[in-house]
Amino acid sequence: KINPERLWNTLHETCKWGATHRYGDGPTDTGMARLTLTDDDASVRKWFATEVQKLGCTLSVDQMGNMFARQSGRLSSPVPMIAMGSHLDTQPRGGRYDGILGIMAALEVLRTMKESKFQTNYDVGVVNWTNEEGARFPMSMCSSGVWAGAIPIQKAWDLRDIHDPDVTLRSELERHGYLGDISCSSDPATGYPLGAHFELHIEQGPILPETGRSIGVVRGAQGYRWLTMTVHGKDAHTGTTPFSARQDPLLASSRMIAASHDIAKKHDALASTGIIRVPSNASTNTVSSQVTFTLDIRHPQDSVVHAVQDECLRAFDAIAAQDGKGVWFDWTLDTDSPAVEFDHNCVASIQAAANQLVGREKSMLMTSGAGHDTVYTSKHCPSAMIFVPCKDGVSHHPTEYCSPQDW
Amino acid sequence: KINPERLWNTLHETCKWGATHRYGDGPTDTGMARLTLTDDDASVRKWFATEVQKLGCTLSVDQMGNMFARQSGRLSSPVPMIAMGSHLDTQPRGGRYDGILGIMAALEVLRTMKESKFQTNYDVGVVNWTNEEGARFPMSMCSSGVWAGAIPIQKAWDLRDIHDPDVTLRSELERHGYLGDISCSSDPATGYPLGAHFELHIEQGPILPETGRSIGVVRGAQGYRWLTMTVHGKDAHTGTTPFSARQDPLLASSRMIAASHDIAKKHDALASTGIIRVPSNASTNTVSSQVTFTLDIRHPQDSVVHAVQDECLRAFDAIAAQDGKGVWFDWTLDTDSPAVEFDHNCVASIQAAANQLVGREKSMLMTSGAGHDTVYTSKHCPSAMIFVPCKDGVSHHPTEYCSPQDW
Ligand SMILES: NC(=O)NCCC(=O)O
Ligand SMILES: NC(=O)NCCC(=O)O
Repeated sequence: KINPERLWNTLHETCKWGATHRYGDGPTDTGMARLTLTDDDASVRKWFATEVQKLGCTLSVDQMGNMFARQSGRLSSPVPMIAMGSHLDTQPRGGRYDGILGIMAALEVLRTMKESKFQTNYDVGVVNWTNEEGARFPMSMCSSGVWAGAIPIQKAWDLRDIHDPDVTLRSELERHGYLGDISCSSDPATGYPLGAHFELHIEQGPILPETGRSIGVVRGAQGYRWLTMTVHGKDAHTGTTPFSARQDPLLASSRMIAASHDIAKKHDALASTGIIRVPSNASTNTVSSQVTFTLDIRHPQDSVVHAVQDECLRAFDAIAAQDGKGVWFDWTLDTDSPAVEFDHNCVASIQAAANQLVGREKSMLMTSGAGHDTVYTSKHCPSAMIFVPCKDGVSHHPTEYCSPQDW
Repeated sequence: KINPERLWNTLHETCKWGATHRYGDGPTDTGMARLTLTDDDASVRKWFATEVQKLGCTLSVDQMGNMFARQSGRLSSPVPMIAMGSHLDTQPRGGRYDGILGIMAALEVLRTMKESKFQTNYDVGVVNWTNEEGARFPMSMCSSGVWAGAIPIQKAWDLRDIHDPDVTLRSELERHGYLGDISCSSDPATGYPLGAHFELHIEQGPILPETGRSIGVVRGAQGYRWLTMTVHGKDAHTGTTPFSARQDPLLASSRMIAASHDIAKKHDALASTGIIRVPSNASTNTVSSQVTFTLDIRHPQDSVVHAVQDECLRAFDAIAAQDGKGVWFDWTLDTDSPAVEFDHNCVASIQAAANQLVGREKSMLMTSGAGHDTVYTSKHCPSAMIFVPCKDGVSHHPTEYCSPQDW
């Protein structure tokens, strides 16, 4: 049995690196901004390295800065380790549990095993995946993606800090000494293969709390695509230019964002815009020259994700021609994460354990709304996830909360 | 008769301070970014001071950095001078004529008078008004507004650079030595009263070019109001938060911007959003916590400006409640510039001169769509404006062009 108090204390202790967005008076009443490969992230990584080494683990770092801590099993046969993995990086206005809980829970498992002198037959360990959030370097789960062979390493290395184009993911790996020497891959010859991958994570949605369950047995994850739209128009004076003479990319973008929502709703899918930008030289009395916005489309079935995207692009074409002299747009596909089904045996073993621990009524099978590193590991080794509830389903928000009752 | 070639050469010569946004190969094929009280603006001000002093003018600078160049008339009776005024500052993606042409034309008038040894009875001169554009310090025509007593000087001094909150309009006046010693007011005892104010300006709209006229006799300016809307929601994960649980300020803002356009169109008015901002810590997979956007509403009748504003705010209330768990908003009124009618005698004298110069068919009475410093001077002295066409009505754009044929 794990020690929930130690887990709680360890988790919040390490949140000193990145704590911000205070919302209450209690010592843990803050959110987090520990963006990947910042100084705060480097500090928590160093702490993690020390802790796993104290437990007797060996630590390997690959060329994406993924950290593999390995506890030897009783049998010395050379098979890939069974991993518990998640991430220590957060959103810029994130909470204290998303990703962090998975790493801390895995560490707690190793600590409990050591304390109770329990040794597995084969090697087990913990993985801290780099840049899961994709908030600083805009590609989510990018390092498990490289590991899985789904993202070319050069593309990941070249990702630029969204606020400072002079800083790349690779330059930050180098600055902090996390450009490791083993290849970021599951190839047994050059990389770091895994025997299986399990990830404990907060649900980040309202289903568990609303149905009063304490464990979600995750059988897969929905598909999603991230698009960046760039809408082009022409600067014009807002006081003298009749609507008929305008090419207004911000008006068109507004109609597009509203349309994408309505289209997704019709399909029971999700479409969301988190970022919109006008050029820094925009002004109140000038129609903007250009607007960019992000579009995040999700549904458990890939065919629906594609249908929503197609319908949005058709609607955008019509909107582009609608007002004044029209605007034009182009777009890029930044993330394409098809729906995945996790390994049936792994899912069944989590289900069995959950039933034993909390009973059939308190657990349920579910599909993840968010992407996770397990989505990528599942392409190379049997993988599955365990969800625990977070209060009101609130996540990617400073007040994100997960009660230790559910650990 | 003025010398159009000298006017052309002088204007483009001085555009070396701030030239940018190249769009063609020719030496003058660039736009301008000469924001008020930047180093480039300080350079052109210094040049202007030297030129008017060469002509024998006296130069006075008031506490808003407005520059008054004065040519003595034959009679030495102490009456306020008759001014030709406009502005040397530009938009961040502006052109070479907006404001600049008015100052250069006024200078050309003084040069022609000197050359032909023509002396007026009473004093005449040129005024360069500070921060007409309101692009750097977000309040348009703010220094003629202070001069007219419509804007408290402290409020204008306290305006912050939109990109650097540590820099105020006053700190920039001080840095460049333009915090003059006379009061910024029309008060004869402490300030700088004017006998009349005439402003030559490009139309910035399509009416003159579309109707083939070369002079617009401006009888007044339409009313406008600038609002800044702040829409508040709650950060949430875009992959796990159902639409019904969201408070999405960017979706609501998009619907508001589209609605304001449709409402203004119905009233034959204008409503425009030039700037929209999400917090710098926004991310693709997070519903934003907050959005701000500008709203610029215009119509020749103040009652219609107010009706559009009221209808927009009612529509925004409905939109705020529409999706998910709703959002809330607040707003500020940043500029309130009621419609004005210029002095009938000034308008009539311009009309008579225009008829004589280009004939009745080539000139027309019109209302300005944009605000100008003359809107404020008209509150304290007889004022009117002359419009000349700009190509295709394009303004607040690097390719803004005014043909010397029309000078
Ligand atoms: N768990 C999580 O927030 N992952 C980020 C990728 C996503 O947007 O789903
Ligand atoms: N002429 C001009 O562009 N003035 C700025 C104020 C306005 O937006 O009308």
